[in-house]
Amino acid sequence: MLGDEVYSILGRAILDGTLQPGERLRDVDLAERLQVSRTPVREALQRLERFGLVEVSANRWTRVATPSENALRDTTEFMAFVVGGAFRTALSRCSEEQLSLILEAADAVIAASDAQDAPGIMAGTVMFFQQVIRATGNTVFISIMRESGLALQRNLRGWTPDIEDAASRSNSYRRLREAVAARDGAAAQHELLAINLLG
Amino acid sequence: MLGDEVYSILGRAILDGTLQPGERLRDVDLAERLQVSRTPVREALQRLERFGLVEVSANRWTRVATPSENALRDTTEFMAFVVGGAFRTALSRCSEEQLSLILEAADAVIAASDAQDAPGIMAGTVMFFQQVIRATGNTVFISIMRESGLALQRNLRGWTPDIEDAASRSNSYRRLREAVAARDGAAAQHELLAINLLG
Repeated sequence: MLGDEVYSILGRAILDGTLQPGERLRDVDLAERLQVSRTPVREALQRLERFGLVEVSANRWTRVATPSENALRDTTEFMAFVVGGAFRTALSRCSEEQLSLILEAADAVIAASDAQDAPGIMAGTVMFFQQVIRATGNTVFISIMRESGLALQRNLRGWTPDIEDAASRSNSYRRLREAVAARDGAAAQHELLAINLLG
Repeated sequence: MLGDEVYSILGRAILDGTLQPGERLRDVDLAERLQVSRTPVREALQRLERFGLVEVSANRWTRVATPSENALRDTTEFMAFVVGGAFRTALSRCSEEQLSLILEAADAVIAASDAQDAPGIMAGTVMFFQQVIRATGNTVFISIMRESGLALQRNLRGWTPDIEDAASRSNSYRRLREAVAARDGAAAQHELLAINLLG
């Protein structure tokens, strides 16, 4: 097993709450549990630390980080600018096939929104944004989102879409979908900022 | 020596051309040259690979990557959206002290532009953007730019500012500085896009 796989296993465990904030992470224990040597475990822990999923006190402890008070605000701000930019870039040049994939993902978000399915909106939004980033064909966008995706998703964990106002939320998503279908990057960016998650 | 230091040494060597595109990187040789074990070297090489500075053909070779044809376009697009967003975020809430640091960095860019000093504009711009990112107080912006900074700088290496039209470039920088001084994030974002580097 490579460091990449250990990174992914530990990252998902932090994401889904199997590993809780504050929980101690001992490389010896983890290596034994995953049946690997300590090297890939240490490598994965360092990588998780660089994106704030793990915190380390040198020679004392390594533990699952508690998201900062501002983690949700910081992540939605960052996503608004990056995904907003990705809309402009992708819609001006992606193939018809890529556009269809983005629209399909948008339809899944709209369906989840209509059904008041909060986890569905969240999962659908992640997929939707991934399709947009991919369709930019911009290797910098793609590699940075791939590298930081785990940390961003973790910061958004506490977030639930405002299901009180389901109708206006669904309408926002529909307008966003229309802007995407029309390849209107500026309008898509505007709608994205208007939607609760990134408002 | 830790993986972090090896990463930084190898990254700078790729950045300044000491290690040339296509050059083979053997972990044994590098470990010997840097007087470290192979573990931190392998760790650093994997990290460089994730950001596209190094390319690996499994079990065959590891070498310094040749920047793709689109590397410059991809990087300037990404920077335009991220730094543009950072201006909006930072100028709406940073301290007066942070604002002074941004303005100082802007002055250095303007001075380099007036002097037709292309490397000075480049170095000044890196410092200027770093101050803006820092002033957002947004940990996601800060950690992502820290992680990807080396790769972004490397992709921009081929770029030289258009010194033919020094006067209008200096004027753009002056307008950008004014927008920053007035804490007008939207205007700063607009000027940034207008400047050659991010046009």
